[in-house]
Amino acid sequence: MNDADDLLPSPMSEPGEVGLVTPSDFVSTEPFACESGQVLPGYTLRYETYGRLNAARDNAILICHALSGDHHCAGIHSLSDRKPGWWNNLIGPGKPVDTHRYFVLCANVIGGCQGSSGPASINPTTGRAYGIAFPSVTIRDMVRAQHRWLQSLGVTALHAVIGGSMGGMQALQWAIEYPAFVRRVVAMATTARESAQGIAFNEVGRQAILQDPGWNGGDYPRQGGPRVGLAIARMMAHITYLSDAGLDRKFGRRRRAVAPAGEVATSDATGGVHGSGTTPSAGSGSSEGGAAAPGFASFEFEIERYLRHQGQSFINRFDANSYLYITRAIDAFDLAGEGSLEQAFAPVQAESLVIGFTSDWLFPPEQNRDIALALLRAGKRASYAELNTDLGHDSFLLESPQLYDLVRGFLR
Amino acid sequence: MNDADDLLPSPMSEPGEVGLVTPSDFVSTEPFACESGQVLPGYTLRYETYGRLNAARDNAILICHALSGDHHCAGIHSLSDRKPGWWNNLIGPGKPVDTHRYFVLCANVIGGCQGSSGPASINPTTGRAYGIAFPSVTIRDMVRAQHRWLQSLGVTALHAVIGGSMGGMQALQWAIEYPAFVRRVVAMATTARESAQGIAFNEVGRQAILQDPGWNGGDYPRQGGPRVGLAIARMMAHITYLSDAGLDRKFGRRRRAVAPAGEVATSDATGGVHGSGTTPSAGSGSSEGGAAAPGFASFEFEIERYLRHQGQSFINRFDANSYLYITRAIDAFDLAGEGSLEQAFAPVQAESLVIGFTSDWLFPPEQNRDIALALLRAGKRASYAELNTDLGHDSFLLESPQLYDLVRGFLR
Repeated sequence: MNDADDLLPSPMSEPGEVGLVTPSDFVSTEPFACESGQVLPGYTLRYETYGRLNAARDNAILICHALSGDHHCAGIHSLSDRKPGWWNNLIGPGKPVDTHRYFVLCANVIGGCQGSSGPASINPTTGRAYGIAFPSVTIRDMVRAQHRWLQSLGVTALHAVIGGSMGGMQALQWAIEYPAFVRRVVAMATTARESAQGIAFNEVGRQAILQDPGWNGGDYPRQGGPRVGLAIARMMAHITYLSDAGLDRKFGRRRRAVAPAGEVATSDATGGVHGSGTTPSAGSGSSEGGAAAPGFASFEFEIERYLRHQGQSFINRFDANSYLYITRAIDAFDLAGEGSLEQAFAPVQAESLVIGFTSDWLFPPEQNRDIALALLRAGKRASYAELNTDLGHDSFLLESPQLYDLVRGFLR
Repeated sequence: MNDADDLLPSPMSEPGEVGLVTPSDFVSTEPFACESGQVLPGYTLRYETYGRLNAARDNAILICHALSGDHHCAGIHSLSDRKPGWWNNLIGPGKPVDTHRYFVLCANVIGGCQGSSGPASINPTTGRAYGIAFPSVTIRDMVRAQHRWLQSLGVTALHAVIGGSMGGMQALQWAIEYPAFVRRVVAMATTARESAQGIAFNEVGRQAILQDPGWNGGDYPRQGGPRVGLAIARMMAHITYLSDAGLDRKFGRRRRAVAPAGEVATSDATGGVHGSGTTPSAGSGSSEGGAAAPGFASFEFEIERYLRHQGQSFINRFDANSYLYITRAIDAFDLAGEGSLEQAFAPVQAESLVIGFTSDWLFPPEQNRDIALALLRAGKRASYAELNTDLGHDSFLLESPQLYDLVRGFLR
């Protein structure tokens, strides 16, 4: 066994935590042919790793992120970071994905906007951002781009690929595309084919972006663009990540009065995406004092404020064109295609654990169970576990001893 | 018994159909104090009636419409009408709500935009549309405005009040507000309190409208306004009226190639809200022919086209400010308030039938069942029926012999 302290990335880090991490860039200068037939002259993937590749090179675990995620899935970037990586509860020394034991890797997907090549990257032939001239990408393209990167690091096989939501799609695609490379798959809160309802929600978000004048055919400044449309898209999508019961418990119908027009309320709390000038509170008055309560918005519910905050913070970290591209990759995802799911899984060599969450209505339990059943019918080793939660799709990201035990046990 | 033919409104109408109908206006010149304390100098309700009030004046049935509905719930307005009223399958001679037997009434709600007073109405003190100067309205305001109208028609009691979704909210409110007036309530696909998730979806729709520059503080020309925002709101809301299974059966993942830019595709099919200039197909090329498939949108799913059509047709018939006001009335709806639902139902004299639909995730079966249970605990006569459908919230509007039998039996 290794000495635990020896493996911690920084002496400043707390025991049990990955601690300070620094992203790296993989730059491929070889052409990359996308599934669409379009060719990128090369590409970059920004990634992070935690733990160390062992001498046998058999302890690598790839983490695949979801639509709005990125490569930063554990640890912190600076000591003043308020938030660690998005799956920090699952990944770290002594955690279910144990960085004492495993070499953990995660890259921002191709088409993304957190350092990997995507629509916001500079097109070398024009010297300007690609915009919608970037090739369309698929889940398979994401996986193929990751494969080249892993090879460059000397990773020749994966102990496991783990992902939830779109990350689960990648994990399944990995097992199909590179059967000899993948020993284990953990796919959770995911699907083998995006449903019509899922496409529908994605399309509303895309229309909100495309119809925003700031989108401008995909050609907008880095700090500008369709901020209103992207925030609307995010607000709506965020609802689909949660659940009726979870929202009711967290927010219920709690509400508060909105300050009369001209009076400064609690900073930008009621400000919406464009500041208070265009929100319901504009032109409104107070519901208190018996004076005429003008308009339709003399109060607001806490859930409304929360959602607007979600929209607002998203536009500061995400590129609208990437949102278009990645939702489109999700829509196009259909492992079975014209054939059957069993046929699609025929090449798989990995052992799979598929996990559904009872309150997930975006990728409901049945869609996860169907994956495991198809793997079994195809003669593969596969298990299905259903976790009872009331927190919706995002359950896979939240603290859950049951989930931890499942993952820990499966990886050993 | 009356002679059936005698009661048909037009000799041109088909047997079994309400046939040609003409809306009427109820104009109240008395001030109307809204629950908010704001006072309208008077108001108009546009309404339709089918059948005749009998001599005993005990055969009137009030139909209450949902968010995007109106007074036109049965029959046709002209012989060239392609679509009859929105509940034409339920209402008519010999139908479950039998116009041979009952005098059926339906009015556009106050705050609406189909002829009743609402934000698009002219404010007599300014000579211009109210816009957001229109008083906020509640479900209770809608009911109280209807009560004055029914009295003007000589209706002194209601054999039944029937409504689904927001119409069900009104039906319940009717039984509480005017206990002696209401003999029976049929409330379906509804709730006694809007959930946090429901508020959340409504808020996303409102933000799409409010953030559209065309909204302009609620002051916009009748044919203009926040058409993009309203269409986005409708597209999103429309998903919540349907179901995963229903969408999968109707649309699945069927898709088709989008014509290259500069080529005229099938008219406005891919046109989105603003015409083809701002849709994904703009700047895109064909996925066929082996040429580079540009951008992210070389194909579209049928569900996307359907949703965009829903958004487009909605903006041609609905006022954005009304959408803000009515969704806000729904959000504010909470019969129990600070007390219990049993206490709220204490005054009720009506016998109630509450109907939930298994696939309705906007107002799920449990929320409907809870209404019936609270009525029973309050010592009232109430039944709950749950219909097994896979068509989501809109199930209450669709053909269903089971629903017809329930309604027919309960009304007798």
